[in-house]
Parts: sequence; C-alpha cells; structure tokens
Amino acid sequence: MKVGFIGLGIMGAPMAEKLIAGGHQLYANTRREVPAALVKQGAIACKTPQQVVDEAEIIFIMVPDTPQVEEVLFGEHGCAKGKLTGKVVVDMSSISPLETKRFAAKVNELGAAYLDAPVSGGEVGAKQGTLTIMVGGDEATFARVKPLLELMGKNITLIGGNGDGQTCKVANQIIVALNIEAVSEALLFASRAGADPAKVREALMGGFASSRILEVHGERMIKRAFSPGFRISLHQKDLNLALQGAKDMSLSLPNTASCQELFNVCAANGAADLDHSALVQALEIMGNHKISS
Amino acid sequence: MKVGFIGLGIMGAPMAEKLIAGGHQLYANTRREVPAALVKQGAIACKTPQQVVDEAEIIFIMVPDTPQVEEVLFGEHGCAKGKLTGKVVVDMSSISPLETKRFAAKVNELGAAYLDAPVSGGEVGAKQGTLTIMVGGDEATFARVKPLLELMGKNITLIGGNGDGQTCKVANQIIVALNIEAVSEALLFASRAGADPAKVREALMGGFASSRILEVHGERMIKRAFSPGFRISLHQKDLNLALQGAKDMSLSLPNTASCQELFNVCAANGAADLDHSALVQALEIMGNHKISS
Repeated sequence: MKVGFIGLGIMGAPMAEKLIAGGHQLYANTRREVPAALVKQGAIACKTPQQVVDEAEIIFIMVPDTPQVEEVLFGEHGCAKGKLTGKVVVDMSSISPLETKRFAAKVNELGAAYLDAPVSGGEVGAKQGTLTIMVGGDEATFARVKPLLELMGKNITLIGGNGDGQTCKVANQIIVALNIEAVSEALLFASRAGADPAKVREALMGGFASSRILEVHGERMIKRAFSPGFRISLHQKDLNLALQGAKDMSLSLPNTASCQELFNVCAANGAADLDHSALVQALEIMGNHKISS
Repeated sequence: MKVGFIGLGIMGAPMAEKLIAGGHQLYANTRREVPAALVKQGAIACKTPQQVVDEAEIIFIMVPDTPQVEEVLFGEHGCAKGKLTGKVVVDMSSISPLETKRFAAKVNELGAAYLDAPVSGGEVGAKQGTLTIMVGGDEATFARVKPLLELMGKNITLIGGNGDGQTCKVANQIIVALNIEAVSEALLFASRAGADPAKVREALMGGFASSRILEVHGERMIKRAFSPGFRISLHQKDLNLALQGAKDMSLSLPNTASCQELFNVCAANGAADLDHSALVQALEIMGNHKISS
C-alpha cells in the first residue's frame, strides 16, 4: 500500500521503518531533510505534506504538539491542499483532544477519514514495534488502518470517536505523573523517618500500593537513575494538555496542577531533560532531604 | 504458648481467633467485654492490660490510634504495670512512627522487647489470615514472634528498627490515597471529555499507568460501588499520621495534603463512611460532573 509519514523525529523515524519493513511504499516528509537511512530502505522523500497526500492513501502524522499538527494539516502546503478524497489521516502525535475533534471535522469535510492514535511506550516501544496505541475514530476506518498500526504497536484499542484516543492518552499521562509523585512522597517520607526506602518499596510491591511506577520509577529514584526515558519537559507538555483541557471544560484537577508545579521546580533546578522519575528531586529540594538507601 | 491480645475490634477479634486456632492459650482484653465467641473458643478474659501481661509471654495490641496504644501501655492498669521482664510487646495498630520509637524505648527500659507490626489487608485479610505485616524491631525478636505473625498474615517483612514498620505503613497509605486520587482525576477528565471511562481504564491497564488501584478502585468508581472496604474516615486518620510526621520532620508532602483536603470535601458531603475510592466524589462535586460509563 502507498503510505505517507509526516514527522520523522525520535519516534516517527523508527515507526516509519516498521511500515517499510511491512512491505509498504512509504512517502515521507519532515521539517528537515528525510533521513538518508529511511531513503536507503526505500522511502520516497516528499517536499511537503501536500505532496505526501497526493501520493499516499493512508497518511500518518507524528509531530511534537497541537500547533505542528495544525500546520501539517492546514498550513500553506499542508495535507488539506492535497488530493484527500477517500483517504485517511492518522494523527499519532499527542495533542489536544478538543482541537483533535475540530481537526477531524475539517478533514471529514474534505472527504477524508480521520483517526487520532496517540501512543505510549516511548523510543524503545517505537523501535521494537510494541507501542500502546489509543485510537479515536469510527470502526470502519479503524478496521482499515489496523493492519498498519499492528506493524508499530501491540496493545491497540479503539476507545471511541475522534478525540477519545487523545483523551485516553491525557488520562494516561495524568496517572503516570501522579503515581510518580505518590511514590516520591512515600519514599521520601520513609527515608526521612529513617527507614530504608528499598525495603519499603519491596514490602509495598505485593499490596494495594503496587503499580508499574512503584516498580520501575521507584527503583530509578532509589538508584538515582535519572537519564531518560521520558523527559520531564515532555511530560510538562502533556500535563499542560490536561490542565488546558480542564480549564476549557471547567474541571478541577488539583494534583495534576500540583505535579506541573513540581515539574516547574525541577526545570528551575536544571532537571527538565532528566527522566520524569526525577520529579522526586523537586520534593527533595523542598524538604532539604535526599532519598538514601 | 501463652499469648496476650489487647483490642478485639473488627480487626483484632479475627486476628486473635487465628492465634487460638494455632493452638495457643490466649489472654484477652478489650475496652468493652471480651466477645463471648472468643471465650467459647478458649480465650481467658482479662480485666486489664496489666493482667494480660502478668499471664502472657508475647502480648499483641490492636487498637485504633496512638493515644489508645499509649493508654494500653502506660495507663493506670497498663502493660507497664505488669510483669514485663523478658516478654515481647507487639503493636499491630497503625500509629505514629515517631511515638512508636518513644514507646519502644520505654518498654525496653522495663526489660521487654518491642515490635511495631502494622498490617494492611483489612477485615477480609484478618479473617483469612492473609494480612500484609510490616515489622520494625530487632532480628532476634522478629524471629521469636514470626511463627505467631504467620498465623495472621502472609507477606511479613522486617523493614528495619522500631518505628520502621509504622513508617512503611504510612508510606503505603500515602501511595494508596494518591493513586486513588490519580485514577479519579484521569477517569473524570476522560468522562468529562466524552470518552467512556470503562474503555479508558481497560486501555490503560496494560501500560505504565497500571496499578492495583486502577484495577480495583477504578472499577469501583465506574460501577459506583462505594460500600466499604476501607472507610474514608480511617484513611483520614492515616494521612494525618503522614502530615503530622511530615510537619515534625520538616518535610513537604503537597499531594498528601491535597488528598486530605479532598477527603474533607467527602466528609462534608456525607461520604466519610464510604470506601476510600469515593474520593472521586470530591472531584465530582468540585467539577459538577459525575463519571458516567
């Protein structure tokens, strides 16, 4: 199949490679030059998103944030300028659920179907083709695109209509941030009170406090293993989507707001490019105590 | 062995039964009358904690909070008035880690060993003998008492010295409360944005957001199954231990403080006796939106 891919960064490039490896003809575009490695594998470099749409049937987008998706779709040489009728736009970026509904409606008006399909699993998941993919859109379009998504991911769920995939991703990022914060407060309390945080983590792993975050990020905190992983600056972007969405919908998310403030404390202290488990450093600075094991 | 048990409430009574069932002679005391069922099983009712200590070699305490433990230990007819030399006091209540260190030191001065051994697992765990037990004390005493603890629990961990068991329990309660709050914010955001919270929960279960709380309490929130379980009023007591301890140690626990406030919102709206997963109701009231599935 003729498949398009717009946005070939840390995530996009390995995802595009999976589509080529799956036997598809890839039409690729990115803000800089299309990576030579990808062209070598058979990708055809396109100068604009418009050109990608003219050639491909299903067009994937993987760019940093809402404004970049809007530019790719509706900018000067954007997808909307190309031959869209009967095609599918699949936005795999993590962006605003509310804006996604607007983008989908506009793309539908131009005669194309739209899926929002943000992912979790990071660079490792992209390279291994094991991403979790949360999809919003109609069932027929989902069925049409699913074989391609299966080249890139493992747990692929249709959550609901357009926007619901992005909403699910935001919910995921809320829980991950708040669970990191929870483990941080608990291990810091334990350490400050004189208990061994490693023993506390072990004792809690089997019970009601158990979580993937306690398992993976709790260990990172104890071992001071803060090289990313998933950068604080990216999680700040995602919590901003949550908080902006909450404001737009008149919803109070007090601990999401608190976590964003703690990430700000991290950024103020040079930790914005560390793994998000380094959130614990904000509480350590505030409490003048470091977790020690 | 001659074993003492002081405090025969919802938790204490089934725990004491396990000791009798294990073949031990039980000397029992509680603020009201010793339950007839327990006497029928062979327990000897004692009028005071002092009398329990005079008869038994290892004395368990299971009462509501720090002041009650202090009263049992050092009150008018408290344990300290009995023949303590060479014996062991095991406090299984959930109380202040800092006060525990003080209590242990005083008991040691009287010639007895001390373990703090708070539990998690609730009434169900007590009845099934599957409690998680987090122990603080020295290794020799732990080894001496462990066969008795194994009659009451399954995951039994020596965390460290006196107070560390209580510290671990507080850390557990911090994570549980904050994970409940995290799931509440995420599912409420999803629901308010128009996504199906049940589908969102399912999609998140395999990934980084997964936790026992998302599994068990996320389902409670969606199904509106708020009969306890573990009451909000009890979790408020535990978060108070965390926040009081944090104040005493000069540590900032912003999201624990926020959760306590949300429990206060629940209490203000008649939900103090519901399961702690009903924390979501505070955010629902504040955001004027209920999770719907």
